[in-house]
Amino acid sequence: MNLILLFQDDFIKPDRVTLKERRAEHIFKVHRAKIGDLLTVGILNGKIGTGKLLSMDSVKREIELEVKLINDPPPPLPLTLVIALPRPKMLRRIFQSVASLGIKKIFIINSWRVEKAFWSSLMLEPKNIEHELILGLEQAKDTVMPEIHLKRLFTPFITKELSSLKANASNITAITAHPKGVLPCPQNINQNGILVMGPEGGFIDIEIDTLEKAGFTTVNLGQRILRLETAVPFIVSRLYSSI
Amino acid sequence: MNLILLFQDDFIKPDRVTLKERRAEHIFKVHRAKIGDLLTVGILNGKIGTGKLLSMDSVKREIELEVKLINDPPPPLPLTLVIALPRPKMLRRIFQSVASLGIKKIFIINSWRVEKAFWSSLMLEPKNIEHELILGLEQAKDTVMPEIHLKRLFTPFITKELSSLKANASNITAITAHPKGVLPCPQNINQNGILVMGPEGGFIDIEIDTLEKAGFTTVNLGQRILRLETAVPFIVSRLYSSI
Repeated sequence: MNLILLFQDDFIKPDRVTLKERRAEHIFKVHRAKIGDLLTVGILNGKIGTGKLLSMDSVKREIELEVKLINDPPPPLPLTLVIALPRPKMLRRIFQSVASLGIKKIFIINSWRVEKAFWSSLMLEPKNIEHELILGLEQAKDTVMPEIHLKRLFTPFITKELSSLKANASNITAITAHPKGVLPCPQNINQNGILVMGPEGGFIDIEIDTLEKAGFTTVNLGQRILRLETAVPFIVSRLYSSI
Repeated sequence: MNLILLFQDDFIKPDRVTLKERRAEHIFKVHRAKIGDLLTVGILNGKIGTGKLLSMDSVKREIELEVKLINDPPPPLPLTLVIALPRPKMLRRIFQSVASLGIKKIFIINSWRVEKAFWSSLMLEPKNIEHELILGLEQAKDTVMPEIHLKRLFTPFITKELSSLKANASNITAITAHPKGVLPCPQNINQNGILVMGPEGGFIDIEIDTLEKAGFTTVNLGQRILRLETAVPFIVSRLYSSI
């Protein structure tokens, strides 16, 4: 927790918050903070600044901070990420990782090789998704909550929704990262992008065709096949050298 | 498992292997292979090629392959990775991830903010480390086992061992990735490198000083602080654009 994310509910006065449970415990046990310490805080979808520790109640496990919010959060990454639903145990880390990388728009899609049962995972419940995204924002000192959209119908999503998202943007790089791609992944695009990534085992040929018809170039990452959680930061770093 | 890693023990004839347990189960259940299918295989620290499925014993759960090894594995990444020991539950994924990225030499070091208890983790036992590295190699279609070295004494390791590793190489980029770094992470070095990364909460100032005196430039990754498992592929991609 490199930043403590605050919510409107935490405020007891315009510049004063009370924290309990997870965030308070973290300040007690990990930060081992003392009265008067300045902690890095930020308000959900808003500015970041400092929280001066005013009081610590070690019985009620409550912490009070005086908050000054002065700086903008880091700029968002101009990348829309589209991933085939990964297995639930990977999903938690993916949410944290994409939030920490500054990705703000994520579509989770179905595809031929996604196991149906994955769609029943508790990890897809909005409050569970939000919890992991908060951890990612706190890690990266960001405040802006990513949007996650679940899309269970592959073809209409790609041919209508994603295709018009691409058509409506000027100067946008639209790629599918897949071992069968002949072209290498572009570098330093530093402009709007849409990145599509398949499930374990990859998209099937007809899915790649659908994506190519929708204007998505299939690119490879070299000889090595990386897992989603390794591939996402790898590609983000390659596409955006200026972050 | 994009490649089935073979060991000398698997061979019953010069071109014939029998597989049981994890690898056989994977071929039964995930590959759903049939007699005659060609699977991608590779021999530990050697060539890669094909394994033609000759027989499947679904009672004994055994599989026999006819093996042809013809191609070199992907080139290794010319990067030595030095990381402060992460928490055990992260270690498993780190081992898989670094193996899949092609890193062949990893030092795991102690540092002020590493919890002592982490050094007793079962995950550090050689056979457990090796298991995770195998999964990473199988993922990335590689055969060359990385070397992992555990170094519990920070200062002598940095000032003697790491420092002479650096001094003995010509044209080597030596960096510590740390939020306090003033310079940005270099891009596209595409030559030998040593990358040092701290624990959660970062190296303390005196550790950074020791590293700087040993010739390691402290560099940052931008405003966002990334977890080790996200930061490693992010930096590898930035340093080596040609993989």
